[in-house]
Amino acid sequence: MTITEKILADHAGKKEVYPGELITARIDLAMANDVTAPLAIKVLEKYGIDKVFDPERIALVLSHFVPAKDIKSAEQAKMVRDFVKKHNIKWFFQEGEGIEHTILPEEGLVVPGDLVVGADSHTCTYGALGAFATGVGSTDIAYAFATGEIWLKVPESMKFIFYGRTKPWVFGKDLILYTIGQIGVDGALYRAMEFEGEAIRELSIDQRLTITNMAVEAGAKNGIIAPDEKTIEYVSQRAKRPWKIYQSDPDAHYHSVYEWDAGSIEPLVAWPYLPSNVHPVTESTHITIDQAFIGSCTNGRLEDLRIAAKVLKGKKVHPYVRCIVIPASKKVYMQALKEGLIDIFLEAGCVVSVSTCGPCLGGHMGILAEGERCISTSNRNFPGRMGHPKSEAYLANPAVVAASAVLGRIAHPEEVVKLEEVYT
Amino acid sequence: MTITEKILADHAGKKEVYPGELITARIDLAMANDVTAPLAIKVLEKYGIDKVFDPERIALVLSHFVPAKDIKSAEQAKMVRDFVKKHNIKWFFQEGEGIEHTILPEEGLVVPGDLVVGADSHTCTYGALGAFATGVGSTDIAYAFATGEIWLKVPESMKFIFYGRTKPWVFGKDLILYTIGQIGVDGALYRAMEFEGEAIRELSIDQRLTITNMAVEAGAKNGIIAPDEKTIEYVSQRAKRPWKIYQSDPDAHYHSVYEWDAGSIEPLVAWPYLPSNVHPVTESTHITIDQAFIGSCTNGRLEDLRIAAKVLKGKKVHPYVRCIVIPASKKVYMQALKEGLIDIFLEAGCVVSVSTCGPCLGGHMGILAEGERCISTSNRNFPGRMGHPKSEAYLANPAVVAASAVLGRIAHPEEVVKLEEVYT
Repeated sequence: MTITEKILADHAGKKEVYPGELITARIDLAMANDVTAPLAIKVLEKYGIDKVFDPERIALVLSHFVPAKDIKSAEQAKMVRDFVKKHNIKWFFQEGEGIEHTILPEEGLVVPGDLVVGADSHTCTYGALGAFATGVGSTDIAYAFATGEIWLKVPESMKFIFYGRTKPWVFGKDLILYTIGQIGVDGALYRAMEFEGEAIRELSIDQRLTITNMAVEAGAKNGIIAPDEKTIEYVSQRAKRPWKIYQSDPDAHYHSVYEWDAGSIEPLVAWPYLPSNVHPVTESTHITIDQAFIGSCTNGRLEDLRIAAKVLKGKKVHPYVRCIVIPASKKVYMQALKEGLIDIFLEAGCVVSVSTCGPCLGGHMGILAEGERCISTSNRNFPGRMGHPKSEAYLANPAVVAASAVLGRIAHPEEVVKLEEVYT
Repeated sequence: MTITEKILADHAGKKEVYPGELITARIDLAMANDVTAPLAIKVLEKYGIDKVFDPERIALVLSHFVPAKDIKSAEQAKMVRDFVKKHNIKWFFQEGEGIEHTILPEEGLVVPGDLVVGADSHTCTYGALGAFATGVGSTDIAYAFATGEIWLKVPESMKFIFYGRTKPWVFGKDLILYTIGQIGVDGALYRAMEFEGEAIRELSIDQRLTITNMAVEAGAKNGIIAPDEKTIEYVSQRAKRPWKIYQSDPDAHYHSVYEWDAGSIEPLVAWPYLPSNVHPVTESTHITIDQAFIGSCTNGRLEDLRIAAKVLKGKKVHPYVRCIVIPASKKVYMQALKEGLIDIFLEAGCVVSVSTCGPCLGGHMGILAEGERCISTSNRNFPGRMGHPKSEAYLANPAVVAASAVLGRIAHPEEVVKLEEVYT
């Protein structure tokens, strides 16, 4: 069996499961945010369900439209707050604590071997820790809140092997953009994407989280990376529960196996209007920008900010560009503060915001006007995703976004800083 | 003549002016923000006016709905940006630079003796520097942009003398709340409010700016404090232009003169729904709160943050309260960062946002739901001002707001910190 199948089998109380099999599985954690929790709460109310399965297995995070951008978002947050008080929900994160997909791993609420469901499509992020994690709708999450179970079809697995070592300025973001560029936005529809290989092992957990975060952009049910010593080290410092390591069997069945040379991959940019519309940065340098966004559940973690700061240190954001930096959690923000990264961003002329999903989903904190162009470390570039239907979003890694902020057009980091300045 | 009359006379090219006289006066600076500038730009376009009187005498500040909260605010910001490029406007402040009423004094763009008009009602703030400053509509500001002149009626002056010294925990905010409480929200309708006395002289410029900021809440045309050595010191470090000191004549005519003992004033809270509905903090401690807001053009300057940090240091925000701290400018934010104030706020559990007017006007970054209550350092508590029409805003000084954030109800700072801890 694959790692995904093993986790699902264990949580379904079965020895084995098969791709396509329908199972009911026990969940370790169920998550919702300020947008999706209110819908789930209404479902529970509609069916007169007055009790949750376990208040210590539910996480509620105010992340999308917070601090409240308008009365509607204030009402949503209030509904979540009231639910938390009523049911004594243990894992509640107020406005400013951060984005759920950064907080949950950071707080040790997701551990290897977990089955986690979340009412947000990027719940697949947690797969980087060797867990099965998937996004579900608000009705499903209401069911999970009530019963502690989820009904699902076992996905077939695909394997992506990245041999060799990446070039400088190539990060987890580029590997997943490359992958989506190769297989398309429906290339992994309802399948498990399993990543491995030397280039993956070399990546920090922060960067692995970027990769699994975007599995859903290829249509996947989940993304997953088998735990190794880096995973163990990461969770040892954080885990709120014991964990279990699963690995795929050597003879596990895969829908398909892709093998790529990581060393041949350049820093990439996904042009509008699909994450699969991938081009090398070097072929994108004619594109001028109005905004640069460094943040989101994809690339708003500490390492991402460190990378961006390396490029922005001592530089100035182009006068016609606003560069918005949003640490993905308060912990990231506070650590970035300690390391002097926030100073670097402010000195460079960036706007540094409280943690929020903000501009990634066109929510607030940096919406685009008609005809404006943004280069962003986030995960989606669909029409209107970050603002006006006729605005454009380009997706790239934090170094590329930072370099572009300085030059006012899409830029390779080496156009702004010398490699030896940064990596010595 | 009063100081107000002298400034207006000089700017009208006259030896004397009289209350009620209609004059056309030369302006030193005209200001608009992301909400009002687009309206002015449309007026200029409508009348085919293709030239501004002086691109070095216009300040445009993106402050209210920034970083853009939605497509509409993005379009407004874009319109301002395009205008700035077209006319080569010298004083343009992008999203995140701060609130106009904090930036303009801070950058030395307002100096003693100036006549400044701004398309924002709190333009009266600058009077603390011994300037005549008043808010005007967007059509008036368009006229000012085009001609460098403003048409106005000379206001009659009122004098407010604060004898003695204030008690601990009483700040500029309490003096202006006291004043409005005494005379009412129309108590200074279309008049100049001139503040003086030992208690005023003792105040820093930051605190004096709080007083003149709220002159408009009593209906005044302008608030003004004659320059002294503190004013000179403040502007010497910043001024972008020469200045001129005006003082009222000993025999100047006043509509009325109020003389108050500053030492008898307690920390105050303006209850909903008027800034004149003033009660001592000690009679407000039964009121629970959902949100605390420290910021705005009234009380978001460095000294305000220092005061709030003294109360919040080592404390925790009440679990049912969100405490939102918004430095009023990027310079304030960066200095607060250096002084460790931001760390104190974050450690206490506050949300620290990029500079914006935000929640003060119910704009974004902390809007209230139905039935929610906020204690705020801002300037208005009208129905729906900070969110839902059935939400409530209470106005107080930064120490009171910080103490209330900790206790989850309106609180006197001494309930949270001992005076000797703070002032030794």
